[in-house]
Amino acid sequence: MSFERLFHPDGIAIIGASADIGRIGGHPIKALKNAGYRGGIFPINPKYRELHGLACFPDVMSLKRRCDLAVVAVPAPGVANAIRDCGKAGIPFAVVLTAGFRETGAEGRKLEAELKAAATESGVRIVGPNCQGMLSLQSRVFAAFGSVADETDFRPGSVSCAFQSGGFGYAIVNLAEAQGVGFRYCVSSGNETDIAMPELLSAFLDDPGTSLAFAYMEGTPDARPLLDVGRKSLDMGKPVLIWKAGTTDAGIKAAASHTANMTGTYDLYRAAMRQCGLIEVDDVEPIVDLARLFAQGRLPKGNAVGVLSISGGSGVVFADAAVRGGLTLPPFAPQTLAKLRQMIPAFGSAENPADITAALFNDKTLFARTLEVVLQDPGLDQLVVLIASISGASAAHSAEVVAAAAAKTDKPVSVQWSGRQAKSEAAMQALAAAGVPFVTTPVRLARACAILSRFAEDRRRLLPRRVAHVTTARSLTLPAGAVTLNEAESKALLRTFGVPVAKEVFVAAGNDVTAAAGTLQAPFAVKIVSRDVPHKTEAGGVKLRVTREGLAEAARQVTDNAKKAVPGAAIDGILVSEMASGLETLIGVINDPSFGPVVALGLGGVLTEVLKDVSYRVAPFDIDTARDMIAELRAAKLFEGYRGAPPADKEALARALVAVSEMATALAPRLKELDINPVFVGPAASGVVAADALVVLK
Amino acid sequence: MSFERLFHPDGIAIIGASADIGRIGGHPIKALKNAGYRGGIFPINPKYRELHGLACFPDVMSLKRRCDLAVVAVPAPGVANAIRDCGKAGIPFAVVLTAGFRETGAEGRKLEAELKAAATESGVRIVGPNCQGMLSLQSRVFAAFGSVADETDFRPGSVSCAFQSGGFGYAIVNLAEAQGVGFRYCVSSGNETDIAMPELLSAFLDDPGTSLAFAYMEGTPDARPLLDVGRKSLDMGKPVLIWKAGTTDAGIKAAASHTANMTGTYDLYRAAMRQCGLIEVDDVEPIVDLARLFAQGRLPKGNAVGVLSISGGSGVVFADAAVRGGLTLPPFAPQTLAKLRQMIPAFGSAENPADITAALFNDKTLFARTLEVVLQDPGLDQLVVLIASISGASAAHSAEVVAAAAAKTDKPVSVQWSGRQAKSEAAMQALAAAGVPFVTTPVRLARACAILSRFAEDRRRLLPRRVAHVTTARSLTLPAGAVTLNEAESKALLRTFGVPVAKEVFVAAGNDVTAAAGTLQAPFAVKIVSRDVPHKTEAGGVKLRVTREGLAEAARQVTDNAKKAVPGAAIDGILVSEMASGLETLIGVINDPSFGPVVALGLGGVLTEVLKDVSYRVAPFDIDTARDMIAELRAAKLFEGYRGAPPADKEALARALVAVSEMATALAPRLKELDINPVFVGPAASGVVAADALVVLK
Repeated sequence: MSFERLFHPDGIAIIGASADIGRIGGHPIKALKNAGYRGGIFPINPKYRELHGLACFPDVMSLKRRCDLAVVAVPAPGVANAIRDCGKAGIPFAVVLTAGFRETGAEGRKLEAELKAAATESGVRIVGPNCQGMLSLQSRVFAAFGSVADETDFRPGSVSCAFQSGGFGYAIVNLAEAQGVGFRYCVSSGNETDIAMPELLSAFLDDPGTSLAFAYMEGTPDARPLLDVGRKSLDMGKPVLIWKAGTTDAGIKAAASHTANMTGTYDLYRAAMRQCGLIEVDDVEPIVDLARLFAQGRLPKGNAVGVLSISGGSGVVFADAAVRGGLTLPPFAPQTLAKLRQMIPAFGSAENPADITAALFNDKTLFARTLEVVLQDPGLDQLVVLIASISGASAAHSAEVVAAAAAKTDKPVSVQWSGRQAKSEAAMQALAAAGVPFVTTPVRLARACAILSRFAEDRRRLLPRRVAHVTTARSLTLPAGAVTLNEAESKALLRTFGVPVAKEVFVAAGNDVTAAAGTLQAPFAVKIVSRDVPHKTEAGGVKLRVTREGLAEAARQVTDNAKKAVPGAAIDGILVSEMASGLETLIGVINDPSFGPVVALGLGGVLTEVLKDVSYRVAPFDIDTARDMIAELRAAKLFEGYRGAPPADKEALARALVAVSEMATALAPRLKELDINPVFVGPAASGVVAADALVVLK
Repeated sequence: MSFERLFHPDGIAIIGASADIGRIGGHPIKALKNAGYRGGIFPINPKYRELHGLACFPDVMSLKRRCDLAVVAVPAPGVANAIRDCGKAGIPFAVVLTAGFRETGAEGRKLEAELKAAATESGVRIVGPNCQGMLSLQSRVFAAFGSVADETDFRPGSVSCAFQSGGFGYAIVNLAEAQGVGFRYCVSSGNETDIAMPELLSAFLDDPGTSLAFAYMEGTPDARPLLDVGRKSLDMGKPVLIWKAGTTDAGIKAAASHTANMTGTYDLYRAAMRQCGLIEVDDVEPIVDLARLFAQGRLPKGNAVGVLSISGGSGVVFADAAVRGGLTLPPFAPQTLAKLRQMIPAFGSAENPADITAALFNDKTLFARTLEVVLQDPGLDQLVVLIASISGASAAHSAEVVAAAAAKTDKPVSVQWSGRQAKSEAAMQALAAAGVPFVTTPVRLARACAILSRFAEDRRRLLPRRVAHVTTARSLTLPAGAVTLNEAESKALLRTFGVPVAKEVFVAAGNDVTAAAGTLQAPFAVKIVSRDVPHKTEAGGVKLRVTREGLAEAARQVTDNAKKAVPGAAIDGILVSEMASGLETLIGVINDPSFGPVVALGLGGVLTEVLKDVSYRVAPFDIDTARDMIAELRAAKLFEGYRGAPPADKEALARALVAVSEMATALAPRLKELDINPVFVGPAASGVVAADALVVLK
């Protein structure tokens, strides 16, 4: 739905308006007046006929003029009624500042359920409760309380943001604004009882006045729509930055006692962001720097960056941070190098990152001449100029040179500059007029340039990906209820979905295993099959490397062991499998409460168990995404062959991951847990084999 | 030696003074005059009798007044002579701005050697060449060129810094200064032909006016003295921050063409910093934040931090970053919690990090009352207050409350605050007067608090450590020349230094291996011994798990294989060893050009080879340092026992590391390389065994 009337309301009621302008019910009135909001401001409070020079009304139904938005500041028990009143009065949106809902315990949860019901019944869409309110800068809407209510001189701009912590969110806005970022919409989303983060971000993307969106999130009960937000962001070329808080146990604990927003596992959020092109940030500075860089409206066509500096050290630390962020600093083209060598003194450097040194001060034309040369280099996708902390006339001259250069190219051009702005008005203006962004340190600039580049690459890489439509109506006969399938049943499911399983035969209890294993090749794995014995190895229910002659005895032993370990267990039979080999991996499925089914990939042994080297993707996904999962493992080199081992069949593993992702999606309503461990990845083109599997239904 | 006359010179000569104030030879004159330097300023240029209103002299010998410092700006070929002149004139220090030395190639290297000789002969100590000059703020010494020559209004303070990139270093200074940091000495050290980074840092520590030192380094040819700088820093309680650039291949390449300072392996620098208490930083913001926090002059007694916030989100992101940095946010004491629960509204949080929420605005005393309670909690080592972006009267009130609280404790107290400073003069002043530092974002504050805490912990942990005096005069008979010792010789060396080696016997070629192995326990490893066959396994020169009966045949086979693999190899004999087992590790020694001998520890197999999970320490070191090396491995958990394996004998491994470190130190003049691989670490209290070793002499 359109949030147009929320962000650009014609008339704002303040329900629970306070006579004390310093209290929460007074702040929005003060702020709207100071901001110069031009619609009607309607204090609602049955105790007064007039408040702060405005006509005051007993309730919203008494309003005679149009009113698109209600700001609600009455105590928590009265909020649901206030929303119902809005419904009656035809007010489509409410921003509920009041706290005291689910974040406070059982009583609050009841009030919140009541509020949610009131919203549904009345059709009123709600921001909050337990939030600090909303700003819409161009329309001068300051429907907020707290320190931000005093900051009505914020410049308007094209960055829209939403945050699950009002105080902290507005602190971010304040800091970013002080560093030159202009905002369009700022929304403190509070408990998100109705309007939640994904819907807000989607609305920001739809808004033509927004060029970049930012969210501070602790968690959201339904996180899967974030994937659509990411895709839309790439599609529209508008970046969405996400600051996911609660990335450690301590942070999660703190968040739980804060807005009571569900904090999902950080690993899953991070994987989802990578999967769909959302940009992760973790402090205010990156937001400021990215807002500046993206505002230029240019995206690089590749990862190659060319650098021209006036201080060698700047080039060194830029290179360090750029390369860590995924950029490359390729050698300049031969003609570029030859020309620069003629211009740059021997104590500088003509190679990328080029350093013209302080010779700048003795030769005024050097900067323009060298920049012109670098600009012509065909091998560069973006250009970076590092001018340290020059100020005054030198800065003005440099800024003009960069501005002129930027006008001659459609590549992104950005500047590191930390000169005194008060002494450098002319430089500031020259850069601003040309739309050339600057960032204060080479490290910050490098990180921002790397993210700019990755966003552009994500558009090229991720947008063409298509996910198979998964039919959940396959003719599956799943047992009813919360049961753990035995290995044979679990593997039968895998086969249904095209996941390769070891060659094997299920031998019902009492039958002849040797005869049953007839066409299989020795040696064998012999395993007990019983829903009651999920931990077969621990129960002595597994024998490996069994010869054909040893089959009968092995079957007897695992049966005896299992019966001893789990008295009364119903033994379905014996599984006789060909022994598989190859690189040991494991594939799992987590059916996450916020993301739904998520596939996990790890390497066997120490790497997964000690180093937690696991990659995740939200299911279902395509084979390119599966390839990303494999490449993302820290020990991915193992697939290339290690200590003489042949390269492993990554493609078959990728196909298996896709199949598991489709299986997880199809089974999602019933799936509690899926573990395929180990999955052996054979040498190239020889495929993969799931050697064991466990499906837990709910 | 004392740098007193360098930093507080009575009289400054500018050799190569320029008539053009905008050129490099003119900048220092302009800067010294603008800065109000009160000593004599003596332009030196035979072409003039007067320059810029100052008497000009043909050479420094002609000066009649005292002159402690020469700033040299003549072209490179004339610099050595200028230094000799300084020697004749009794000028003890020179700052050489001129570039064109070793950074430019062969001719420059010759000029630099000549300059070094001139310095040695004349006794003149030199900063530079190829540097941007030096500032000494209290004495108004602006012996520099470039943009900093215009910044003579920099406030004086107690931070001293040195940097191997003038332009970038002064950009850092400029940015930090703009954020409120006051400087004492700033030295652009250039090529460090004479005075190098460790000596400068040591001088900063000796200076009573310096409270914190900072260095930007690309590398230094003699890095080992940095360990002494670190120790001195801990001992004096003055932190030293190091920004090591060239941490990636791209950065190293850029640095190589910059000041041509040798860039050592980043891994070794990082290990050395951890070993001695130097603090690593990687951007300007941490420098600013740490300068502020350390300026309070308080160090925490432990890692526990208590947090009081007015915005829940601030507390969440603070907790995330704090815990990642090594801090803990322990639960408040029961009495603290009980009191806070009574004060803080239900929609806030009384648990650490406590969140009093925006209720602050409706209850003016809440902040003071809750802070008082947190202050009393005995389980906290430092206190942090997060006040988001409040400004004006609210900020002033909060600042006064925090200032009053800080006066009642000797624990560090710090504030996150991002309110508009222009609207919050009173708050700024209250915090400044109380010496309470503030930082703009919770993440930056958390990182700084963590480093403050680690510095204090390093003082407790690292200062008591004593390194054994290693006698290099052991009665060792090392073969002459650059030879690779065979395994038997290498292991004999290990035994000499107390490194446990497998039980084994060396059987000279042609002797009876079965008889020689008499008292050893089967099974055995049988290996060829030959200096000519360092890669025994590849040459087929190793047989493992050999039975006693199989010994003779195995010896014959490895000998034949080795002869075939390396025709003409001199076979010294056969090594018969008991097979060892346990957790597989490897210990190596790198004899680094800048650090000297450094010991490396890795875990066998994939962890070292694919994941590069290796820890380093500069030799020699004590057993606590060895324990740190083990703990620092990412897969250190493996030592605790994995998949049913017993815990490994970490203590024996630590002892072996110490022994190797002493061996490496003793052999350093002859050691090229030492590899002990594998070292098997047995179950607790059963020791370690070096199963193979290779010593390469130079």
